[in-house]
Amino acid sequence: MVAQRAVRTNNEADNPSSPVLQFGPDKPLKLDAGTLLSPFQIAYQTYGTLNDARSNAILVCHALTGDQHVANTNPVTGKPGWWEVLIGPGKIIDTNRFFVICSNVVGGCLGSTGPASTNPATGRPYGLDLPIITIRDMVRAQLMLVDHFGIEKLFCVVGGSMGGMQVLEWAASHSERVFSALPIATGARHSSQNIAFHEVGRQAVMADPDWHGGKYLDFGRRPEKGLAVARMAAHITYLSEAALHRKFGRNLQDREALTFGFDADFQIESYLRHQGMTFVDRFDANSYLYLTRAMDYFDIAVDHGGRLANAFAGTKTRFCLVSFTSDWLFPTEESRSVVHALNAAGASVSFVEIETDRGHDAFLLDEPELFAAINGFIASAARARGLSL
Amino acid sequence: MVAQRAVRTNNEADNPSSPVLQFGPDKPLKLDAGTLLSPFQIAYQTYGTLNDARSNAILVCHALTGDQHVANTNPVTGKPGWWEVLIGPGKIIDTNRFFVICSNVVGGCLGSTGPASTNPATGRPYGLDLPIITIRDMVRAQLMLVDHFGIEKLFCVVGGSMGGMQVLEWAASHSERVFSALPIATGARHSSQNIAFHEVGRQAVMADPDWHGGKYLDFGRRPEKGLAVARMAAHITYLSEAALHRKFGRNLQDREALTFGFDADFQIESYLRHQGMTFVDRFDANSYLYLTRAMDYFDIAVDHGGRLANAFAGTKTRFCLVSFTSDWLFPTEESRSVVHALNAAGASVSFVEIETDRGHDAFLLDEPELFAAINGFIASAARARGLSL
Repeated sequence: MVAQRAVRTNNEADNPSSPVLQFGPDKPLKLDAGTLLSPFQIAYQTYGTLNDARSNAILVCHALTGDQHVANTNPVTGKPGWWEVLIGPGKIIDTNRFFVICSNVVGGCLGSTGPASTNPATGRPYGLDLPIITIRDMVRAQLMLVDHFGIEKLFCVVGGSMGGMQVLEWAASHSERVFSALPIATGARHSSQNIAFHEVGRQAVMADPDWHGGKYLDFGRRPEKGLAVARMAAHITYLSEAALHRKFGRNLQDREALTFGFDADFQIESYLRHQGMTFVDRFDANSYLYLTRAMDYFDIAVDHGGRLANAFAGTKTRFCLVSFTSDWLFPTEESRSVVHALNAAGASVSFVEIETDRGHDAFLLDEPELFAAINGFIASAARARGLSL
Repeated sequence: MVAQRAVRTNNEADNPSSPVLQFGPDKPLKLDAGTLLSPFQIAYQTYGTLNDARSNAILVCHALTGDQHVANTNPVTGKPGWWEVLIGPGKIIDTNRFFVICSNVVGGCLGSTGPASTNPATGRPYGLDLPIITIRDMVRAQLMLVDHFGIEKLFCVVGGSMGGMQVLEWAASHSERVFSALPIATGARHSSQNIAFHEVGRQAVMADPDWHGGKYLDFGRRPEKGLAVARMAAHITYLSEAALHRKFGRNLQDREALTFGFDADFQIESYLRHQGMTFVDRFDANSYLYLTRAMDYFDIAVDHGGRLANAFAGTKTRFCLVSFTSDWLFPTEESRSVVHALNAAGASVSFVEIETDRGHDAFLLDEPELFAAINGFIASAARARGLSL
């Protein structure tokens, strides 16, 4: 049973249920690690139609455990796309007007080349033989996808959390290709505390004997317990104390009184265990290691002589940043320091801090103030870009 | 090697390097779980001399991973006692004036009866056959120790975090035995977020195959990897983002550049791994399960008809509460709600919120404002109690 699932995962990594763009030996992906990844592939989804001027494309960048299925039913989970509240026909990001692209990041596990993909040198899954992937590498791959569509300049690049890091990286390294940028609940570097939580998650995965030094697919196993613990720890950081108190408090789970044992007496325990268990069904453990590492390594200022403003010097991109008051993974201060750097670089930038108790995950939720901010920014940028309503 | 260590741990549980008070079948410990624990024992340390009036005793309650070695070199780690900065001859809690008692909590692993102790029914370690222990149970056992010393009324009960929970429980259930109470960095109940972090730690331990359903000592094993992950996750919550940024930032560990791998590139990673590794050498994994559960179950209001003020009705105890601005495990709000309840109960209470970026663990550190607050409160209470300077 376990072996079957592992093999299935591996096949999915190479042959996902999305269109795939394959790059052969003539088009390697240059990695920050100093090596080339070749061949490699990108799995993606698109929505709407690219106009003749190729000026209406919006690239959506997904977060750590997201994927390319931003606005269609997810074929793995059967759930709605992760941003269907925002993106679709007649919605705020209106696919009747815009051509929306969302691709699985390189290093991911839903069709783009990642650690579960087949290593052409061995015919076996890469495992830890895949070089480390950075946010910049992810963006380089996305650029090759955008080139494939013949898009000279993206109308907008948008994303939250790790997706927001990609937005900032697009704006820093490929400013001339980005008309407007919308980084949400993110920062220009990963903080010490965030690295710490990621390291806990990685150690939980690596402590699981079913991880087998990263070669678990070769053994027909998956480190499900370790990955579930990693997910549980991370999931707490996506919420806020206030939201946890409001949603769960100290409520008991389907019982009248404490059981004086180690069962999930409290609703919050039951909820977390459920989060852990469902996550391992849809996510590859090695991908979790690679993508958390990519976030940890992210530090735009270091890539630009230690001064964040340098990264955005001379930019013509229009920016809107959004943060949430109860987000303790990427507190407002992180967005504010990006805003300061953009101001110093003379960029056009607006900034919205949204009052909510829903924590970091607010960017994924039906949050009216967020939608209003995105709507206003997109409408204004569309006018400036000369896109008809 | 592992087997040897396991056996040694087990022997230590029964025969610690501290004085031990044993309670036979005539003196069982009544547990909230509805059963009796018998026989059982308490390991403790004392400092200073009990005066003739037996009015100068201070009970110190330790935190989750603390022990009775509050003011002497710890025989397990070789390090100074965990509150030696505060307690000793001529120090703020002056053992030339006061008789200081500190006992290992029931459920712990340094000599008081806990899951690693021998179950008299089987001759093997209890493991999960030990009933669940609550904060109230710990305090009931401490009361029996205090009775043993013939102390009618403790001059002061003091402790931080889980120790502070015990202080509040003393004041709520045995007010007539407590002249003054000093709960630090604590609350009258464990929050949803705190339960969540504890549950992650427990799942990390239980996911380790060396845990063996709690019977690891029978197998000559210990779930070291799982316990280390639990400690790493918990340790982040004892600090603050500001302190982590100040101490570690994104500094690299003994290297000039990122290694593009999963080694501990960042100092914070190396620090956390070290915290995890050293913890498993001194702490029993099942004790970690029991003591985190005791904290999760703690909710004084529920024990008193749902109204916290009821717990302190008619109290004559003098209180001083202390919180730290950067403590996100027990934020000031938790202390404030206890202060409100004490005010509603007409108690004598002072409250100090200390500005610091050192997070929850500030109560264990050389924090001048904390020391000043403790010093002032103890001096004033000593005058009121008629204790000569």
